[in-house]
Amino acid sequence: MPEFSPGLEGVVAAQTAVSEVDGANGRLIYRGGYLIEDLAPIVTYEEVAYLLWQGDLPNKTQLGALRRQMAAARPLSKAARGALMAMDPATDPMDVLRTVVSAQGANKTLVKPTLEEAIALTAVFPTIVAAAYRRRQGQEVLDSRDDLSHAANLLWMMEGKEPDAKRVHSADAYLVLLADHGLNASTFAARVIASTGSDLTSSVVGAIGALKGPAHGGATFAARTMLDKIGSADNAERWLRDAHARHERFAGFGHRLYRTYDPRAKILREMAGTGAPELHRTAARTEELALQILHEAHPERPNATNVDFWASVVLTGAGIPKEMFTCLFATSRVVGWTAHVLESLTDLRIIRPASEWTGPEPGKKPMPVANR
Amino acid sequence: MPEFSPGLEGVVAAQTAVSEVDGANGRLIYRGGYLIEDLAPIVTYEEVAYLLWQGDLPNKTQLGALRRQMAAARPLSKAARGALMAMDPATDPMDVLRTVVSAQGANKTLVKPTLEEAIALTAVFPTIVAAAYRRRQGQEVLDSRDDLSHAANLLWMMEGKEPDAKRVHSADAYLVLLADHGLNASTFAARVIASTGSDLTSSVVGAIGALKGPAHGGATFAARTMLDKIGSADNAERWLRDAHARHERFAGFGHRLYRTYDPRAKILREMAGTGAPELHRTAARTEELALQILHEAHPERPNATNVDFWASVVLTGAGIPKEMFTCLFATSRVVGWTAHVLESLTDLRIIRPASEWTGPEPGKKPMPVANR
Repeated sequence: MPEFSPGLEGVVAAQTAVSEVDGANGRLIYRGGYLIEDLAPIVTYEEVAYLLWQGDLPNKTQLGALRRQMAAARPLSKAARGALMAMDPATDPMDVLRTVVSAQGANKTLVKPTLEEAIALTAVFPTIVAAAYRRRQGQEVLDSRDDLSHAANLLWMMEGKEPDAKRVHSADAYLVLLADHGLNASTFAARVIASTGSDLTSSVVGAIGALKGPAHGGATFAARTMLDKIGSADNAERWLRDAHARHERFAGFGHRLYRTYDPRAKILREMAGTGAPELHRTAARTEELALQILHEAHPERPNATNVDFWASVVLTGAGIPKEMFTCLFATSRVVGWTAHVLESLTDLRIIRPASEWTGPEPGKKPMPVANR
Repeated sequence: MPEFSPGLEGVVAAQTAVSEVDGANGRLIYRGGYLIEDLAPIVTYEEVAYLLWQGDLPNKTQLGALRRQMAAARPLSKAARGALMAMDPATDPMDVLRTVVSAQGANKTLVKPTLEEAIALTAVFPTIVAAAYRRRQGQEVLDSRDDLSHAANLLWMMEGKEPDAKRVHSADAYLVLLADHGLNASTFAARVIASTGSDLTSSVVGAIGALKGPAHGGATFAARTMLDKIGSADNAERWLRDAHARHERFAGFGHRLYRTYDPRAKILREMAGTGAPELHRTAARTEELALQILHEAHPERPNATNVDFWASVVLTGAGIPKEMFTCLFATSRVVGWTAHVLESLTDLRIIRPASEWTGPEPGKKPMPVANR
C-alpha cells in the first residue's frame, strides 16, 4: 500500500499545459509559456480566456468574434431565471451562483464538454453575480449590455450606471490574474467530475462549491474582514501583535506552493492605490508589520503575502462589496475550470484514488438481529 | 517530482472507516466492519444510513427517530420548488437533481456540514427524483407521504399508487447495496469540495455531477441499454459475438478494483428474478456468454460481472424506468457522500494536488503587442 499524503500534497494528479505554479521561484505561467507579470499589463480578460482555452492569444478578428459570442450568451434561460427569482434574496451569493449556473447549463441529454459551452458558461457568470447582488440590495435585476466588455458589463449590471474606466480596469486586471492557478482545489474538483465523462456544467457547478470554502475562494473575504477589524494604519501594530499573541493566523499571508512572494499579489499591490486610498494605507502598513512579525516568530518559514490580501484591496477599489468577493473569484476562475476540463478530454480516465481502511476487520462483531 | 499516476490509480487519497472495497478478495466492508453480504439481508436503507453516518446500527428507538426526521424533511423549500417548476420537463433528470438539491440546500451564510443536514439532504432526494420523473411524463408532482419508508415513499411519489411490497423490497435492497463504495469518483469529488471548508450541499451537488458520467453512475443505464439491444435470451449469443468482433465493450462487466465477482452483483443476481422475468432470462444468458467470450479472449484478465449489470435488472423489476437509474444511484449514494464529508471534518486539509507542466518554458515566444 502506498503512503497516504494528506491533501494529496506533492502528488501529481494531472499533466497540464493550461497553467503552472512554480512556487519555488515565485512564478505563475499561463498557457503558451507566458509569465503572469508579462501578460497582465497588456491583455484583457477576454484575451486571457481565449489564451487559456485555445492555446494562443487572439488576433483582433478572433477577439472581436469572442467578445460578440460572449455578449450574446449573457442572458439567463427561462429555467435559470426561474431558479434565481425563487431564491430568498438574502441567500449566500455563492449558493445562488451554484444553483443558477446549474439551471442555466441544464440539458435534455448528456452533452460532452465543448468550447462553445465553456464560452457560454463564462459569459453568464456576471449576469448571475450581479443579479444576486442587486436582489440582496432589494434592487431590480438589470439586463446585460452587449456593447460592454466582460468586466464593464459586470459593473454595469451590479450598479446600473455607466462604469468608471479606472474601476473597470481594476476589475479586469483582477479577472486576468485569477483566471487559472494550476491544480487548485476547485479546478481539481472540476477535473474529477469531468473524469467520469460528465458534462461541463456539472464540473463548473462542483468547482463553484469547492471555491466557496474559506480555505480557497473565501480567503479574499477573510483578508478584507481582517483589514476591516484593523480599521486604520495607526491601529495595525496593536491589532497584529494582539492577534499574534492569541495565535490567530493572519489572513492573506502564506500559500502552500509559493515559497516566495506571490507574483499576482505583487501586481495587485502595485495597482491597489486606486479607488480605496484609506484601505490601501491600512493594507500597506498591515503587510509591512505582518511580514515582520511572522519573520520574527518563524524566520525559517516563507511567509509572503498571498494574492487574497491585495485582491481584497483592488476589488474594494473597483467598487465590489466584500460579500461578493468569492463570486468575483468564481467569475474569473471559470475560464481555468473549463480550460482544464477541455484539456482533460484528450485522455479521459476516471479519477478514482484508493483509500486506507481505518475501520475494524469484518467478523469482529456479532451480527445484530434485524429490526424489521 | 513524483511520478504521475493517471486517474490517481493506487494513490491513497483518504483514510476512512466509512467503507472499504477489498477488490482482491471480492469484499465490500461497510462501517463497523460489516460485510455487505451479511448486512444486506437484514437491514433497510434507513438502517444503513444510520450505520454509515453514526458508526453503529440503530436500535428500534433510534431507527424510529431517524425515520420521523427523514419523513419530515421530504418536502421541497420554496426556492427548490421554484427551481424545479421553472425547468423544462424534458431536462435530464440528473440535471434537475443537481439544480434542485442546490436550491434546497442554499443558505444565507456558510454552514459547516452537520449530520442534520446530511439527513435532510438524503431525505429530499426521492422527492426531487420522483418530481422530475412525473414532470417528464406530463403528470402532476405528488406530495410525499410521511407514513412510508424511504423506498416506499419514492415509489409512491413516482407512481401515485400504493407500492407493491416486493417492489419496495427490491428498491430498498438496491439502495442498501449502493450506499457507499470506498473512494469512488463522486465520493472523492465530495471530499475535495469539503476539503476547502465548504458546505455539505456544495459537496453533494458536486458529487451528483460526477456520478452523472457514463464511466460512473451512468453505467447501469448502459447495462440496461445493452440488454435492450440484445432483446432476448435466444439473441444473446449472436449479439455478443458480433459486438465482440466489433471490439465493443460489454456494459456491466469489469471493475477497476474487483479482481473477482463484485459481491453486490452476486446479491442482486440472486434477487433479480422478481418483477422482470423476461429481462432476467436475457440477463442470465447474457452474463453466461459474456463471461465465456471475455475469458476466451483474455484468460489472464479478471472480467467478472459488476454491480451495474444486475442492478439494471433489479431496478427494472422494482418498476424504475431506465432513464431514472442514475438518479436512483444518487438517491442511494448520497448517504455515502455525506458520511465521507462528515468523517473528513475531523482532520480537514485542503486537497490540492500537484500537476506536471507540459507547456513551453517562459521566454520562448516574443511577447505580443496589446490589442487594446
